[in-house]
Amino acid sequence: MKKPDEIEIIKIFQSRFGQGPKFIPEDLEVLSISNQNFLVKSDMLVQSTDVPAGMKLYQVARKSLVSCVSDFACKGIKPRYAIISLAIPRGFTRKMINELAIGFAKASKEFAVKIIGGDVNQGKEIVIDVSMFGVGDRLVRRGGAKKGDIIVTSGPFGYSSSGLKIILRKLKADPKFVKKCKKSVFLPTPRLEFGLKAARYFSSSMDSSDGLSITLNDMSKLSKKRFFVTRIPTEKDVEEFAKKKNISLVDLVFCGGEEYEMVATVPKKNLHMVRNIAKKLNVPLFEIGYVTNGKNVILVDKKQEKTLKRCGWVHLRS
Amino acid sequence: MKKPDEIEIIKIFQSRFGQGPKFIPEDLEVLSISNQNFLVKSDMLVQSTDVPAGMKLYQVARKSLVSCVSDFACKGIKPRYAIISLAIPRGFTRKMINELAIGFAKASKEFAVKIIGGDVNQGKEIVIDVSMFGVGDRLVRRGGAKKGDIIVTSGPFGYSSSGLKIILRKLKADPKFVKKCKKSVFLPTPRLEFGLKAARYFSSSMDSSDGLSITLNDMSKLSKKRFFVTRIPTEKDVEEFAKKKNISLVDLVFCGGEEYEMVATVPKKNLHMVRNIAKKLNVPLFEIGYVTNGKNVILVDKKQEKTLKRCGWVHLRS
Repeated sequence: MKKPDEIEIIKIFQSRFGQGPKFIPEDLEVLSISNQNFLVKSDMLVQSTDVPAGMKLYQVARKSLVSCVSDFACKGIKPRYAIISLAIPRGFTRKMINELAIGFAKASKEFAVKIIGGDVNQGKEIVIDVSMFGVGDRLVRRGGAKKGDIIVTSGPFGYSSSGLKIILRKLKADPKFVKKCKKSVFLPTPRLEFGLKAARYFSSSMDSSDGLSITLNDMSKLSKKRFFVTRIPTEKDVEEFAKKKNISLVDLVFCGGEEYEMVATVPKKNLHMVRNIAKKLNVPLFEIGYVTNGKNVILVDKKQEKTLKRCGWVHLRS
Repeated sequence: MKKPDEIEIIKIFQSRFGQGPKFIPEDLEVLSISNQNFLVKSDMLVQSTDVPAGMKLYQVARKSLVSCVSDFACKGIKPRYAIISLAIPRGFTRKMINELAIGFAKASKEFAVKIIGGDVNQGKEIVIDVSMFGVGDRLVRRGGAKKGDIIVTSGPFGYSSSGLKIILRKLKADPKFVKKCKKSVFLPTPRLEFGLKAARYFSSSMDSSDGLSITLNDMSKLSKKRFFVTRIPTEKDVEEFAKKKNISLVDLVFCGGEEYEMVATVPKKNLHMVRNIAKKLNVPLFEIGYVTNGKNVILVDKKQEKTLKRCGWVHLRS
């Protein structure tokens, strides 16, 4: 019998926890206590699935915080505190612990998130689970897109999936491009400041770390709208890499994941504000399409319209 | 060179995170945001270190929540919400997932903690990291004991360490005793209701899951007081087991861990209140000694006074 994958597992849990089929997942969990919205995100990084060869320990530690920061960024909520639960194998030296500590401290400083505690354990591999906390009244939802809104991304896609292919399949490519790709894999940087300033002008938003197609499809479904993608958010060097290596550009850009860019829909009247904020913060905003009535994500590629299916990373899928 | 253990690792992290040597660890982390105290606990359960042979999946899932509930119980704070991050190996069947879900749901109901979200991952072994949340104004500290206070525990010690020895070393013992011990290991139950009602009468308190000697030593050190232990908090059957198997009773009771009982100090004027609450809730309160000026934990055993050293479970200690 087929084993359940991540998506089925979550469904089983949700039904058991009384959340029912109408439960809407969000980038952040909301705890409403005493009229205060307390926002939390937990994200687990596992060495054997999340750490590609060549990634340094300080980068691993930093990335465990980056995943959570990215979810706060897209919702426009300032992350304030973090708690870190850690499992490490026996034999970790003082030097290795120090390297992890440096990575945590680096991310803490970079995103102004105070690390307030944690739990240290022994395990078969490195596992880092970060819980991050903030407060906020208004939370941009995944499902708020309206007809006529413009779909934007906070940066180009394709570098991290190209990077993973370069690392895992040991592909050769232009050294400058390789460097850019590896930076995208090892040192991803969510656009926190942009999110904090621009989110109030979004009608919906979502973190893209599971892959752009999953993100667009989830937003379309939850908004009950059709998303028309007329421009592929990427750069020339990714296009060239795809061509040279005979890899589908659509796969690289839409089915990769780990980009830590935000995807948002912006009402037309707000677009100039979002453009201005992006310009001021040097964020390479991509306007990739628009929202209309209907359902599904439609990609207009080489003047052909096709439905963009959910593709990307799903844990435990065989 | 000697590898750093859990305690040294935490010190390295604390110095890097700017918490300094004066940082006082607590059972719960306090996030003060907008004049509201949010209380959080994260606790990671790792299969290879925390799950003894014979423990069922639903018990593993339940126990991952129990560890956090226990910390809330001893501080007298009601836990309200939980987030669960999970890593499981490939090949987990629907039945196994269901068993985990049942365990989570069972604990959620048992302690009235709402599970609001989580993260599912693939890893080499089962890792469950639970973050639990509550609010509260007054938090009983680990370091508040005053001269003359009575030291109490919310139940007997020695069953879980006996149980672990029975399981790991395959020791034979009286079936009724084995059952009691296994229940203590597989289905530990923190005294949440007692903690919620009685904590206001404590001058200090701490969860004992790392071992009773560690707990008493930490409380003594943080309170800058001497703890005099005049009674060993255990039962006749544990004493008999120790005698028969030629195991030190002091080791079984003070150096075990995983008991999930609370240790507290109670000002004499509050003692009758705490006794009454315990009686009403069928909590077998043990009054095990008193607080005086000085330092260290002194155990009076067979009319001899000796210093009770820190012993118990430390991760990654060789």
